[in-house]
Amino acid sequence: MAGQRIGVVTTGGDAPGLNAVIRAIVKAAYQSETEPEIRGYRDGMEGVMERRWLRLTPDSIKGILPRAGTMLGAGTRVNPFNVGGVDQSELAMQELRELDVLMILGGNGSMALGHALHTRYGLPVIGIPKTIDNDVVGTDMTFGFDSAVMAATEAIDRLHATAEAHHRVFVVETMGRDVGWIALYAGIGGGADVILMPEVPFSIDRVAETIRWRDASGRRFTIVVVAEGARPREGEPCYSMEGECRRYGGIATWLAGQLSDRVDQDVRPIQLGHIQRGVEPTARDRRLATALGAHAVELARDGHAGCMVALRGNQITKVPLDEVQGVRRVAPDDPLYRTGISIGISYCGQPVEGR
Amino acid sequence: MAGQRIGVVTTGGDAPGLNAVIRAIVKAAYQSETEPEIRGYRDGMEGVMERRWLRLTPDSIKGILPRAGTMLGAGTRVNPFNVGGVDQSELAMQELRELDVLMILGGNGSMALGHALHTRYGLPVIGIPKTIDNDVVGTDMTFGFDSAVMAATEAIDRLHATAEAHHRVFVVETMGRDVGWIALYAGIGGGADVILMPEVPFSIDRVAETIRWRDASGRRFTIVVVAEGARPREGEPCYSMEGECRRYGGIATWLAGQLSDRVDQDVRPIQLGHIQRGVEPTARDRRLATALGAHAVELARDGHAGCMVALRGNQITKVPLDEVQGVRRVAPDDPLYRTGISIGISYCGQPVEGR
Amino acid sequence: MAGQRIGVVTTGGDAPGLNAVIRAIVKAAYQSETEPEIRGYRDGMEGVMERRWLRLTPDSIKGILPRAGTMLGAGTRVNPFNVGGVDQSELAMQELRELDVLMILGGNGSMALGHALHTRYGLPVIGIPKTIDNDVVGTDMTFGFDSAVMAATEAIDRLHATAEAHHRVFVVETMGRDVGWIALYAGIGGGADVILMPEVPFSIDRVAETIRWRDASGRRFTIVVVAEGARPREGEPCYSMEGECRRYGGIATWLAGQLSDRVDQDVRPIQLGHIQRGVEPTARDRRLATALGAHAVELARDGHAGCMVALRGNQITKVPLDEVQGVRRVAPDDPLYRTGISIGISYCGQPVEGR
Amino acid sequence: MAGQRIGVVTTGGDAPGLNAVIRAIVKAAYQSETEPEIRGYRDGMEGVMERRWLRLTPDSIKGILPRAGTMLGAGTRVNPFNVGGVDQSELAMQELRELDVLMILGGNGSMALGHALHTRYGLPVIGIPKTIDNDVVGTDMTFGFDSAVMAATEAIDRLHATAEAHHRVFVVETMGRDVGWIALYAGIGGGADVILMPEVPFSIDRVAETIRWRDASGRRFTIVVVAEGARPREGEPCYSMEGECRRYGGIATWLAGQLSDRVDQDVRPIQLGHIQRGVEPTARDRRLATALGAHAVELARDGHAGCMVALRGNQITKVPLDEVQGVRRVAPDDPLYRTGISIGISYCGQPVEGR
Repeated sequence: MAGQRIGVVTTGGDAPGLNAVIRAIVKAAYQSETEPEIRGYRDGMEGVMERRWLRLTPDSIKGILPRAGTMLGAGTRVNPFNVGGVDQSELAMQELRELDVLMILGGNGSMALGHALHTRYGLPVIGIPKTIDNDVVGTDMTFGFDSAVMAATEAIDRLHATAEAHHRVFVVETMGRDVGWIALYAGIGGGADVILMPEVPFSIDRVAETIRWRDASGRRFTIVVVAEGARPREGEPCYSMEGECRRYGGIATWLAGQLSDRVDQDVRPIQLGHIQRGVEPTARDRRLATALGAHAVELARDGHAGCMVALRGNQITKVPLDEVQGVRRVAPDDPLYRTGISIGISYCGQPVEGR
Repeated sequence: MAGQRIGVVTTGGDAPGLNAVIRAIVKAAYQSETEPEIRGYRDGMEGVMERRWLRLTPDSIKGILPRAGTMLGAGTRVNPFNVGGVDQSELAMQELRELDVLMILGGNGSMALGHALHTRYGLPVIGIPKTIDNDVVGTDMTFGFDSAVMAATEAIDRLHATAEAHHRVFVVETMGRDVGWIALYAGIGGGADVILMPEVPFSIDRVAETIRWRDASGRRFTIVVVAEGARPREGEPCYSMEGECRRYGGIATWLAGQLSDRVDQDVRPIQLGHIQRGVEPTARDRRLATALGAHAVELARDGHAGCMVALRGNQITKVPLDEVQGVRRVAPDDPLYRTGISIGISYCGQPVEGR
Repeated sequence: MAGQRIGVVTTGGDAPGLNAVIRAIVKAAYQSETEPEIRGYRDGMEGVMERRWLRLTPDSIKGILPRAGTMLGAGTRVNPFNVGGVDQSELAMQELRELDVLMILGGNGSMALGHALHTRYGLPVIGIPKTIDNDVVGTDMTFGFDSAVMAATEAIDRLHATAEAHHRVFVVETMGRDVGWIALYAGIGGGADVILMPEVPFSIDRVAETIRWRDASGRRFTIVVVAEGARPREGEPCYSMEGECRRYGGIATWLAGQLSDRVDQDVRPIQLGHIQRGVEPTARDRRLATALGAHAVELARDGHAGCMVALRGNQITKVPLDEVQGVRRVAPDDPLYRTGISIGISYCGQPVEGR
Repeated sequence: MAGQRIGVVTTGGDAPGLNAVIRAIVKAAYQSETEPEIRGYRDGMEGVMERRWLRLTPDSIKGILPRAGTMLGAGTRVNPFNVGGVDQSELAMQELRELDVLMILGGNGSMALGHALHTRYGLPVIGIPKTIDNDVVGTDMTFGFDSAVMAATEAIDRLHATAEAHHRVFVVETMGRDVGWIALYAGIGGGADVILMPEVPFSIDRVAETIRWRDASGRRFTIVVVAEGARPREGEPCYSMEGECRRYGGIATWLAGQLSDRVDQDVRPIQLGHIQRGVEPTARDRRLATALGAHAVELARDGHAGCMVALRGNQITKVPLDEVQGVRRVAPDDPLYRTGISIGISYCGQPVEGR
């Protein structure tokens, strides 16, 4: 059988495992077909619209499995349906119509884009869920997430030593503008005492209380993990996203200042930033990315489209793209949230049992 | 309410995450009860029978979350039902009757032991599945496994550089006497070319063929991952477990010798050994161990017994101990096995599609 | 011979290797003497003045060699010669007179304090140079430095992936208020393009020029490493240490803002912060700390005092404490600075040959 | 000035830092000259004789700084002065005469080869000392060594956890056929109890005695580090290099067997093998490799030849090639050997003071 022409495009930020998924697509396609043509678009949708692509072959993917970043360049936020207010999707389709299938690697925005291309133009699209934020509905986990969590956990481990030695409070900011997945997972894994998430408005006063209570009972340090998008609840001082603060400061810096006014200990903010994103993929992310990429090729070969590959339990499966639109998975729904309550983590917005 | 008296015992080898589960049990028990008494038995069932234990309190578990090994000493293979042919379970029960619940941390053997204590003596037992082998039925994953896989994957990564530089074949032996979980997971994550497991008898000739085929097509190195218990299929040279070889040599060394006779390239064996077991727990194993430990305390508080805590999908749940007896989970049932076929991994015992 | 009474005190911040040096002192003292008494003061000079100490024995140091932080608690900045304007050194001497020798672990401030105690009171003092800043005169390296550099290099590695994928500029802030050692070493090791240090006032305009020049010649990303204390040269916009900025913002955040106004690319600041300090000691720092601690015990046994143990070339030796007062080792004197010039690093304050 | 034509050849095994030194040569050459031509020979001297080389430019070295292995392929053991008994150096010179300078990267054998080419044919040669064994005379350290030590130390760390948990003895075999550098450095850094090196014949009986003495005094585990080439002293059972044992078994396996017969504890051998060689270069090795490579270019530009770049103290300097012939640096001459004696390491071949 003549090989398929497969397009691979990444949208949104880079994530650990991107190279692994590209490699899996290539390996699986070359296993299952005689002469596939795989177009790897450079710099995301920009590459589609400018028809800049690299032909991906088994030779071009050598050695990339464990590498951070992406060999194709990360996608910018270009959305062909809205380029500076103008719909340029037809321009993108000039390239895309040449494909048998488009594999789109990204988060919620990318799945929406894939869905739109599929429904509007009938383009055969298969989505592969990639985001360190882990908030894509329909899959238990996105690739990139485990690596980001590993990096954040490792950073928390390192702060423990200094926190203990100096009887200090650290406020550690993880990524997560809308959801607290990284904060929750790294917080529990790293032994944090307080974990603050966008999903659960927190009380500065209660965080301060927890710190003082720990100090009084002989735990002379506290680790507060706070997701980028966490905010105080109404009625407490408000973290404004305006001004210079918006530009570079973050919630950790602001919160450390607020806490400094309320407790006796030295409070220091730490913003983990891009160290979470640029890390080499963990063994788990490599496997997940490989499994998703290989399954996407199988689906394409069997004529499926308009769906997203997904991890469900320990099965690799597919979900229709229209079922993953318009919602986010939130961290408090995860069983680990309840684990945190059991071991006494303060989420500081709702009462902690038994404290 | 007066606190429960909880016993914690580890049986079998140490595994990354043991300290994390001990910590979670203590934290959760102190959260949910006023004055729990937690007995941590030293050196496994030996400590039970000799009534050697440490009282575990929030102070005694400080800083152990990320530590390898176990603060209690690993369990030896002592089985109170059969100590040198003599049933000494009654002796163990003299200590165990003082408990409200016994938490038993271990693999298949431990779950059998817990089940026997529960059914014979009515002892309230909760099992917590721990083994780097990942072969316990009823749970999607045991803690310790992810860390062992990480360590093995990292080792394979390192061999790639030398294999490529020297156009060499490496035969890497992972743990796994009865099952190929570590070999499969580390092999796919580390980019191995051939993966051999106890579940799938292999053909030395076909492995050699794969190596020669790779060399001929320009891939001048090959990584073979072999689980400790993998064996050639009938009719091929037999790996004997007798003699000096049995004592210290391993399948990798033997197989490297066999392959050396069949291919032109330099073939080197590597036995990863205990480096897989002693590694610090990954963030994931710490979370899994924490979730299992915390859930075990909840179950005990609610009066459940005779069950094992388990991971199912992304839920933490429980299964009756009698459902986990006498069987092993095997690696070829895992979806990752199929992923391997898709990307062209040679399992060398059954035909690989499309090769 | 009756054992010596040895005091061990840490002053200043914690540093990787502190536990290793404590362990070496204990091991060496118990090797060379029958019954030594080793007092480990808690929380630095505070512990001396309050006579809070832990008796250090071979049992108390088990397992601490690879651990971050310090088992004794880090020294606060308490200086007994000036406690809120009052000289309380006599109070400290009440405890210290009971010692045969005081081992003082710290940076330049600690060596000055040790020197003062030695000259004013005749206290036998041996200094052990500890600081991640590496600026102590008389030794080629202080312990803690190699680990901090490792952590910073690893962070730079991770930013490379994202910088390349997104064609972005990262401004990475390392520790180093007065000296550029970490910035220089991590910058060269991590493949930075621009390295800015307190010793070499930089030009914002020239940094911007370097970024534009790289972009124009096809290197569409740039990594700028900047030490905490680096400052622009006179005549350029001035980084003020006043206001909120002083409190939490850092040079990286400020400089990223300045560069954003001058180049087209996206410029992101990253402050590595305490992740550099809390890291587990590298193998090298463990060896250096061990060698310095063991040599300090040998010197004490042989009756030496008023000196600091030091690394010179690959020899462990000693220097008089009065030779290490009042000066700092600066990074541009290091041969690596010249290496940087050879490979085209921009230090942006002096002309780079051949550019 | 017209650019130089520079040849770069690696001989012997791969070592961490090879890519870093290649990168530094290219960067420095392109900094100091208008139009250099740099020939990177593939697969070592084989590539010279077959005139297989890659033109190295700033583009070809992108991203290789932190990578393990070598982009050029490792050198085989081909010696042009003796190819199967035939002197083919004239053949090599047909290629080499086209060069202005040959940079030869390797250990003692390579420096001898470089010296021979320089003296016999007047070829301008600059040696760059590369070997994980660290035994090249004239330099304080070779690149590759720090990374190998890091990997070995990390492995020893991991064995500690299991050794303690199971009250077990581990015999860890490091690389080092002729010298004990890795064993000594990793042993001290990893907290080994016994370190055995080729330079110091050991006594099996005394090692057993140390293990029993530790057990009796409450240290129920022992870590023995043994270099590949260490051997028992005369009069004790002899480790034969003949037979099957020579082919695959190693000293650790053999010694573990001998010790098992002499002590009650469980004794397990671990052979670290190629994991030491394939590791990604440490920050330190990257800096050292960069400094050596850059300095080699400076020397070449200034017309020097017949020398080897070297680290002396913390200076990068040069030594005549004829001064580095025919001798090896041995580990017991290093100050760290004495440190080991101070803290009670057993080298088991000479009396340990104070035991």
